[in-house]
Amino acid sequence: MDKVNLAEKLDSFAEHWSPRTVAQYNGNDIMVVRVQGEFHWHNHPDTDDFFLVLDGELDIELRDRVVTLGPGELFVVPSGTEHRPVARRGEVKMLLIEPSGTPNTGDPATAAPHICI
Amino acid sequence: MDKVNLAEKLDSFAEHWSPRTVAQYNGNDIMVVRVQGEFHWHNHPDTDDFFLVLDGELDIELRDRVVTLGPGELFVVPSGTEHRPVARRGEVKMLLIEPSGTPNTGDPATAAPHICI
Repeated sequence: MDKVNLAEKLDSFAEHWSPRTVAQYNGNDIMVVRVQGEFHWHNHPDTDDFFLVLDGELDIELRDRVVTLGPGELFVVPSGTEHRPVARRGEVKMLLIEPSGTPNTGDPATAAPHICI
Repeated sequence: MDKVNLAEKLDSFAEHWSPRTVAQYNGNDIMVVRVQGEFHWHNHPDTDDFFLVLDGELDIELRDRVVTLGPGELFVVPSGTEHRPVARRGEVKMLLIEPSGTPNTGDPATAAPHICI
């Protein structure tokens, strides 16, 4: 593989809530995503959910609190924990890590397609 | 857990080549590290090795080429691949991901201790 420049990858597409896989690590997809507005409440029963904000400010709403991440801040949502990522104050660019094949919505029926770039 | 501000964590210690675990994801340690100069050649027979440069410029020497990473650039060294990280042009700050318990040198006898911050 080659190195991955995250900003270049993020500049290569415009869609929101459509993660792109840029590398793989031990059966996990390393993804970049651009988001704006509200996602929906969901959980991943079998995997933690890794968020690292690269640009913008993201609220990760949990049932009992809100975790707000700016650039260079990360949070891992434990498996089985309901959460809703929300970008209320402009677009947010992030790095995500999930086991390959994990539906981003927690439900294969509604999951975004898997796209590698 | 709380969110993790990577710059704050990196500012909390000064040692080189001494990774600090700042979060966990599915049995993997999410670590920050400050490095300068040469590490040694090694490989991890059972795991890929994830590098994301946050500050500075890192050379990951492979036996057949050199991958140079700047801020916002990542590279995954495939398992079993000999490599040597080198920071020749000043200090480098990085995010690393490895399965918990992985010796950073590839050898438990010479590995850095596991430190959580």
